[in-house]
Amino acid sequence: MEYRFSARMGKLSGNATREILKLIKRGGIISFAGGLPAGDMLPSAELAAVTAEILNSPRVKEVMQYDVTEGAPETRAEIAEYLGGFGVRNIGADDVQIVSGGQQGIDLACRALLDKGDYALVENPTYLAALQIVASCEAEAIGVKAAAGGLDLNDLEDKIKKYNPKLLYVVPTFSNPTGGSYSADNRKRIAELTARYGVVVVEDDPYAKLRFTGEAVPSIKSTDKAGNVIYLTSFSKIVSPGMRIGAACAAPDLLRRMTVCKQGIDVHTNSLSVAVIGEFLKRGIIARHVEKVLPIYKKKQKLIVECLDRYMPACYRHTDPEGGLFIWGRFEGAKIDTQTLLPEAIETCKAAYVQGNVFYADDSGHDCLRLNFSNPSETDIERGIKGLGSFFKKKI
Amino acid sequence: MEYRFSARMGKLSGNATREILKLIKRGGIISFAGGLPAGDMLPSAELAAVTAEILNSPRVKEVMQYDVTEGAPETRAEIAEYLGGFGVRNIGADDVQIVSGGQQGIDLACRALLDKGDYALVENPTYLAALQIVASCEAEAIGVKAAAGGLDLNDLEDKIKKYNPKLLYVVPTFSNPTGGSYSADNRKRIAELTARYGVVVVEDDPYAKLRFTGEAVPSIKSTDKAGNVIYLTSFSKIVSPGMRIGAACAAPDLLRRMTVCKQGIDVHTNSLSVAVIGEFLKRGIIARHVEKVLPIYKKKQKLIVECLDRYMPACYRHTDPEGGLFIWGRFEGAKIDTQTLLPEAIETCKAAYVQGNVFYADDSGHDCLRLNFSNPSETDIERGIKGLGSFFKKKI
Repeated sequence: MEYRFSARMGKLSGNATREILKLIKRGGIISFAGGLPAGDMLPSAELAAVTAEILNSPRVKEVMQYDVTEGAPETRAEIAEYLGGFGVRNIGADDVQIVSGGQQGIDLACRALLDKGDYALVENPTYLAALQIVASCEAEAIGVKAAAGGLDLNDLEDKIKKYNPKLLYVVPTFSNPTGGSYSADNRKRIAELTARYGVVVVEDDPYAKLRFTGEAVPSIKSTDKAGNVIYLTSFSKIVSPGMRIGAACAAPDLLRRMTVCKQGIDVHTNSLSVAVIGEFLKRGIIARHVEKVLPIYKKKQKLIVECLDRYMPACYRHTDPEGGLFIWGRFEGAKIDTQTLLPEAIETCKAAYVQGNVFYADDSGHDCLRLNFSNPSETDIERGIKGLGSFFKKKI
Repeated sequence: MEYRFSARMGKLSGNATREILKLIKRGGIISFAGGLPAGDMLPSAELAAVTAEILNSPRVKEVMQYDVTEGAPETRAEIAEYLGGFGVRNIGADDVQIVSGGQQGIDLACRALLDKGDYALVENPTYLAALQIVASCEAEAIGVKAAAGGLDLNDLEDKIKKYNPKLLYVVPTFSNPTGGSYSADNRKRIAELTARYGVVVVEDDPYAKLRFTGEAVPSIKSTDKAGNVIYLTSFSKIVSPGMRIGAACAAPDLLRRMTVCKQGIDVHTNSLSVAVIGEFLKRGIIARHVEKVLPIYKKKQKLIVECLDRYMPACYRHTDPEGGLFIWGRFEGAKIDTQTLLPEAIETCKAAYVQGNVFYADDSGHDCLRLNFSNPSETDIERGIKGLGSFFKKKI
């Protein structure tokens, strides 16, 4: 039968990294593609212990039944306290909506705000799923230029005036894909500028806890006076992606709309994982786990920088992130298309990256690539970058 | 700040049952409102055992990391086999998309198909979340008349001709809210009719395993020759709603679009719960659990029918379901508005039901109410219906 698919779906193809992940799952490939935490650094013993405790207590009934869409109040209260660490203060359980992974927060925010034909501003480049979500709302994503220390504020104001966007989506700390961060001043001015024009900021902040050098910078939300910033956090990068637990914090009217959206989408988030995250926070397991992980990520970041400098072509320039999971690079002035070369790279180097253009609202960045350094082992980083380096040298 | 919410959200208010559930969670209320399985009948020991086994095995790494959007192939293979029990045969893991609760299957199907201004046919009355989801796609839900043994096929064909709908949403087995079921012939003719006009059927079938009397009837999907039926199953009603695990089975092109939708929404479903459901199916835990539950549900259904006949006003007519969780009633010819009376009923009887009108595409059914009989205890059923009976008698 001929299916009559929705127009919004016509715009969407599969997510590049998800498709690559499928390929990699077949094995034998060194993956710099995913956004996975180090597999050997997941708090599995703590997960097993806390889960067993919950399932062998009277709480088992609670986690097996339906919950409210907002998620268990105990966990929301813990998250509200946890958000203080990002400068989000004076909030309680009712200011938090638990989401099925931080990405659901982006989807809920976009569905609550975006109509067909609306505009959403994003940093260029940005998290590719955000681009897909904006497209799924039949809205258009417009890229804002990056500058030293954050967004180019002149370009931001020009594009706000030109497009009258309903929202601005940013990953201001250890950005996916670049690993870059916005300065405190840049964040403050983004909050002021968007408030002045009535633009909602979706601040996606899943990496902030993963800082291994430099000074912590307060979130954009921490400077939000107008109530126009939706703050999104996630436990995927610091505890476990498979649990699919994140949280949104926003002004009551905004959060309420997101909750009503979520009611229709999945009713509520997996109750057992919500309860486990609550216990993890209460017992300081997450804080201790992050302390344990950071030196390893720092070492891997240092190693991948060394390998990139040693093995990649001379025209290759890369970022030097102070935290997070990703490092970003560009082949300057070279005729390299990382998208068309990816299948051959996987084939010949047995190593996978993500092509840069998928992170651009305007499909530029074909000469860029994103590399994840948290998941591959040190041996694989050395071997994989060496392989990719000689591969790209042959292509120039 | 003034928020500019999307038009689709303007149409949505909170889901009635979710709001009532919040009220009830404060305690002291006998709830006939939710769609909850019996709290004392959840397989909590099995859940604790199987979960511990997975988390203390090498599989723990797998369930803690990102998974493919489709969900773990092992679990999908088990579900493909399980669907044979509903007459859905000759399928494998690749024909199954795991969803975050059966309701997500409705959302994915609607997002893949419905554009603003499109029409979706539903049985009148139908599952209220389906009405919300259609509205969230800015499409319009049109009610199709029910007849003895299923949908009124003439009305169905008339409305297909009149509205050229993209999909028909039905709960053909132990319907939510009525508890009624479609005959085998009615199902076959629904499949034929919709295929002829190129209408996709979303067959939502979470209750089929909960038959305590009468003969099992094959699913609409089992008669699908054209590939126009999306079959949705759920483990919420037979294992645990809190786990949020369901599955969709459809023709490759349809399923692929739903998978791309899901990538943007929540990446994938909670991996631990997906793995647990896989083990539950493999070990026959679900089949044994259902056998254990059915006699209790049968007894509760018999009891609520007796209580309704004994205590409710003479003008009250109810269904007599052969399975599922719900019984439906109407105050015939009486000036009863179950919606306006609900707060007072909860206040005076300390018992909650769901008002009938929320299940209607056209907001009719104000003289109807839905009662859940699986979750309240036998004592509470007796006490609650007695209270509601005398309450409504006073209102006539």
